[in-house]
Amino acid sequence: MSLARVQHFSVSLDGFATGEGQSLEAPFGHAGERLHTWMFDTRWGRAMLGKSGGTGGVDDAFLRLFAPGVGAEIMGAHKFGHPGWHQDPEWKGWWGPNPPFHTPVFVLTHHPRPSIEMEGGTTFHFLDASPADALKTAREAAAGQDVRIGGGPTVIRDFLAAGLVDHLHVVVVPILLGRGVRLWDGLEGLEQDYETEAVSTPSGVTHVTFARKGL
Amino acid sequence: MSLARVQHFSVSLDGFATGEGQSLEAPFGHAGERLHTWMFDTRWGRAMLGKSGGTGGVDDAFLRLFAPGVGAEIMGAHKFGHPGWHQDPEWKGWWGPNPPFHTPVFVLTHHPRPSIEMEGGTTFHFLDASPADALKTAREAAAGQDVRIGGGPTVIRDFLAAGLVDHLHVVVVPILLGRGVRLWDGLEGLEQDYETEAVSTPSGVTHVTFARKGL
Repeated sequence: MSLARVQHFSVSLDGFATGEGQSLEAPFGHAGERLHTWMFDTRWGRAMLGKSGGTGGVDDAFLRLFAPGVGAEIMGAHKFGHPGWHQDPEWKGWWGPNPPFHTPVFVLTHHPRPSIEMEGGTTFHFLDASPADALKTAREAAAGQDVRIGGGPTVIRDFLAAGLVDHLHVVVVPILLGRGVRLWDGLEGLEQDYETEAVSTPSGVTHVTFARKGL
Repeated sequence: MSLARVQHFSVSLDGFATGEGQSLEAPFGHAGERLHTWMFDTRWGRAMLGKSGGTGGVDDAFLRLFAPGVGAEIMGAHKFGHPGWHQDPEWKGWWGPNPPFHTPVFVLTHHPRPSIEMEGGTTFHFLDASPADALKTAREAAAGQDVRIGGGPTVIRDFLAAGLVDHLHVVVVPILLGRGVRLWDGLEGLEQDYETEAVSTPSGVTHVTFARKGL
C-alpha cells in the first residue's frame, strides 16, 4: 500500500515551520537554520555535509527513513524557490545539480513550466492541481511506493485538512519564532483520526507522530 | 530566594491553553477537560478526586511540586471566574469552600472587591495592578517563598513578556484545539534567557521547562 507521509517536519514550540521574510538569501526567513540544527548533529545530517561523526539515536533513526520506500515527493512553490522564482526561467530549486530527492518531485504552482531533469534521479514536474489530484499523479509516478508530502507548512496543512496524510512526523524544536508560517492552523480535532506518540530526545526536540488509525 | 514559577501549565500542540467560549458551565470552553486528563491518571490527581491508584512517574512528580515552597499565587480574572463574575457579589471562584491553593491568592482584575477568606488557608485578594506591582505584593505575602503565576494564558504571557518568570513548566498535550486563547503569542526569542528541557512521558504529554539562566 502506498502511503502519503510527512517526514521529520520541524516546527517551533509556537508552531511556526518557517520564519517571516523568505528570500533568495534566507530560505527560512528570520528563522535561519534554527529549526534544523538538530539534524546537523546526527550521523545522517553530518554525512549529508560530507562530515563524519554525529549522534546515532532517535533523531538519526528518523532521518534515515527519509529515502527508503519513498517513490515521489510533492512540494509547494515556496519550498521549491524564493518568492518570484517563477519569473526566473533558470531557477532549478535550492539544492544544486544533484538534489537529495532522487525521485520524481511534483511542485504545486499556479505557474507550471516544463519538467526539469536533474542529476541523480530527481525530476521536477510542475502541477497546478488540487491536493487530491496531485497525490493521484504522484502515486502513479511512485509505482506503488510511498509519496512524501515535503512541505512547506501551507502545503502540509492543505493535505492534512483534505484528509490525505497517512503518517505525519513533526519535530517540535524548543524555540519561539514568534512569527512566520504556522503549521497547525485550522486543524481542530486532527488527532481523532490518528494514533499519536511523542518522544523527546537528548537534543531537546520532541518527535510527534500521527499514524492514521486502521492502516 | 523567592522565584516566580509557572507550574504544569497545559497547552495543546497548536498552543492553546484554553478553548473558545468560556462560560459558567464550561470553564475551559470547547476544550472541556481534554488538556487536563493527563493529571487525573496520576496518583496525585486521583488523590485530589478522593481516589486511590494512578501513575507514579514523571507526570506525578511534577504535580507534587504544586504546593511545596509556594507562598502565594497570582491569577487572572478569567481563571478566577466565568465572564461577568465581577457582577456577582457571591462569586468565590470555581473551587468550592476549600480551594486547593492554601495560600494568599491575588486575582488581577479591573474590578477589585474586598478580600475573601476561604477555608484551608486560601484568601482571595483582588488587585488592579501591573504584573511587576502584583508580583511585589505577592512576594511580600509569600514571606520568602515562591510565587506561583497560576494563569490563565493571558496572564502568563504578560508576566513572560515582562521578564518576570523565573521557571516555566508547560505541558504539551498532543491534541489540536484549533481555537481559543494561545499561550505563546508575542514571545519571540524567549528561550534565549532560559535553559530549556523537554521530556515526553508514557501518557503522551511532553513536559517543557524553561529555567532562567544564572539563577
